[in-house]
Amino acid sequence: MPKIIRLHRQGGPEVLVFEDIELDPPAAGEVHIKVEAIGLNRSEAMYRAGRYPVPATLPCLMGYEACGTILRLGEGVEGYEVGDQVSVLPLFQLGTYGVWGEEAIVPASALLPAPPGLSPAEAAAVWMQYMTAFAIIEAAQIGIGDGVIIRAASSSVGLAAIQLANWAGAIPIACTRTSEKADALKQHGAAHVIATEEEDLVERVMEITSGRGARTAFDPVGGPYVHTLASALAERGILIVYGGLSEQETPYAHWPCAMKGASMRGWVASEIWNHPERYERTQERILAGLTAGHLKPVIAKTFPLDRIAEANAYLESNQQIGKIVVTV
Amino acid sequence: MPKIIRLHRQGGPEVLVFEDIELDPPAAGEVHIKVEAIGLNRSEAMYRAGRYPVPATLPCLMGYEACGTILRLGEGVEGYEVGDQVSVLPLFQLGTYGVWGEEAIVPASALLPAPPGLSPAEAAAVWMQYMTAFAIIEAAQIGIGDGVIIRAASSSVGLAAIQLANWAGAIPIACTRTSEKADALKQHGAAHVIATEEEDLVERVMEITSGRGARTAFDPVGGPYVHTLASALAERGILIVYGGLSEQETPYAHWPCAMKGASMRGWVASEIWNHPERYERTQERILAGLTAGHLKPVIAKTFPLDRIAEANAYLESNQQIGKIVVTV
Repeated sequence: MPKIIRLHRQGGPEVLVFEDIELDPPAAGEVHIKVEAIGLNRSEAMYRAGRYPVPATLPCLMGYEACGTILRLGEGVEGYEVGDQVSVLPLFQLGTYGVWGEEAIVPASALLPAPPGLSPAEAAAVWMQYMTAFAIIEAAQIGIGDGVIIRAASSSVGLAAIQLANWAGAIPIACTRTSEKADALKQHGAAHVIATEEEDLVERVMEITSGRGARTAFDPVGGPYVHTLASALAERGILIVYGGLSEQETPYAHWPCAMKGASMRGWVASEIWNHPERYERTQERILAGLTAGHLKPVIAKTFPLDRIAEANAYLESNQQIGKIVVTV
Repeated sequence: MPKIIRLHRQGGPEVLVFEDIELDPPAAGEVHIKVEAIGLNRSEAMYRAGRYPVPATLPCLMGYEACGTILRLGEGVEGYEVGDQVSVLPLFQLGTYGVWGEEAIVPASALLPAPPGLSPAEAAAVWMQYMTAFAIIEAAQIGIGDGVIIRAASSSVGLAAIQLANWAGAIPIACTRTSEKADALKQHGAAHVIATEEEDLVERVMEITSGRGARTAFDPVGGPYVHTLASALAERGILIVYGGLSEQETPYAHWPCAMKGASMRGWVASEIWNHPERYERTQERILAGLTAGHLKPVIAKTFPLDRIAEANAYLESNQQIGKIVVTV
């Protein structure tokens, strides 16, 4: 019987326990996969800890991003065959399905073919980060010469945004709390790195952008610092808030937005995948970017499945640069 | 000598005192006008009261919207003649010049010809309100069938937004605190009126828009209610915050914005007049709207100049529907 993680209570990484569970055959529209690699996400860690806005019905499964091979197809599933290597995308609510385990049942609608030429670890670390980072294209329409402020730049989505900004001819300005990761971020493509606890972000961004300010700022953290980010925007600039990791109230940056006609805008990647035409277009662009070498997933560290609790703790330590992947 | 108001201290309407002041000849780029009518603005009342974000250097002049006739031209002023009837627009900082008085010196760059066919009171109540309300076109690109939520709808800018929304084929949804002004707002063109202290705004807007939500909400108040406004937006809707009359912290409406890819956006009318091409285009549209009857300034009440303190108190009483004008 496959080992599968279920959550019986919410809390630290220690609440993750393995159970031997025989999976039912996939229902109509579902597939049964052998999991090969699992990409970890912040939202999952917050869900595990009970700090996610959607409540959990316990016990529940965990995880929604993976690469695997199809073992069985449910009724009516088209476009896939047994043996196909697929990526699982977070197109379902956390806890309703789950990929943290040796095998999983997932809805076929949450699958895409694994991109050719990638390892299973990379194929588990590609769609979510790039579709999330595509906000800077979809929501801010960045172009050549535009300053793009990327907060929490060493996260998988941050690095994806650096790569996309470079591909678009824009200027990725990576933000990180201290200068510790500055060299690594430059090696990963950041044109500039700002250590937000050590430097004046607005002054640096104005220098870099010849006084115009940045076209966009891309922020998963929120909280009072949005005022500083908004102050570094150009006229009609857009501060994209794609998470609330600070767990503090995020104010509306009234005066910077008023004086520059700037915006604060929400973003979740479902804004792409809930719209078939956007979803298809973005898939094509990501595949083209991978093929041409503009995009390349950065794996911070891999852990074997039996050390997934340790992988969770590492994710929450903020030491990583890139995606944390669990291999099965 | 003309009677002119100067502020020697900030406070209630009683701080407005008249002085007999002989005006110097207009300097280069300035004109000297005989004031015929003065349009009152919230920002002026807040400045008078010392609650405006720009500090005053006392004593200072007051007011920046008027209609008048040119008495003298400073050096280098082109395009105007002595005797021309002009509108004064708020294209200078409060207190640096001032139109509250029988005569005034103003920069020629702040003038436009008074629109033909309007009374002086109307010509003092036209440019600021329509250029401010043009946010729903410039920033939210409203079009036919779009729901447009207009908060503080009985203000001059609110009524201007109702007229613009109707002209654009959109659906103006007027918000007012109680149902007291509902009939008047309908007479002034509101397709729907929501009394925000008596009704569930989100529910009403969803009914009106067949569940889609509004394209935009246009709000001079801010404060915690922005969460409700943002919850009534459509996908990719835009909440335009063009003032902070609540004088409370305005939060960023994180979840409504995230789940719908919606924005909160700042706006001041300088976003039009600081850009020559936008300024010219918007002037043309406003004149066309006045000529065709789509736009018509609504005067709530006029006061003679010696009762300008009473006019200030009336403005702050929130009883009015439309613009308060002081005639000279």
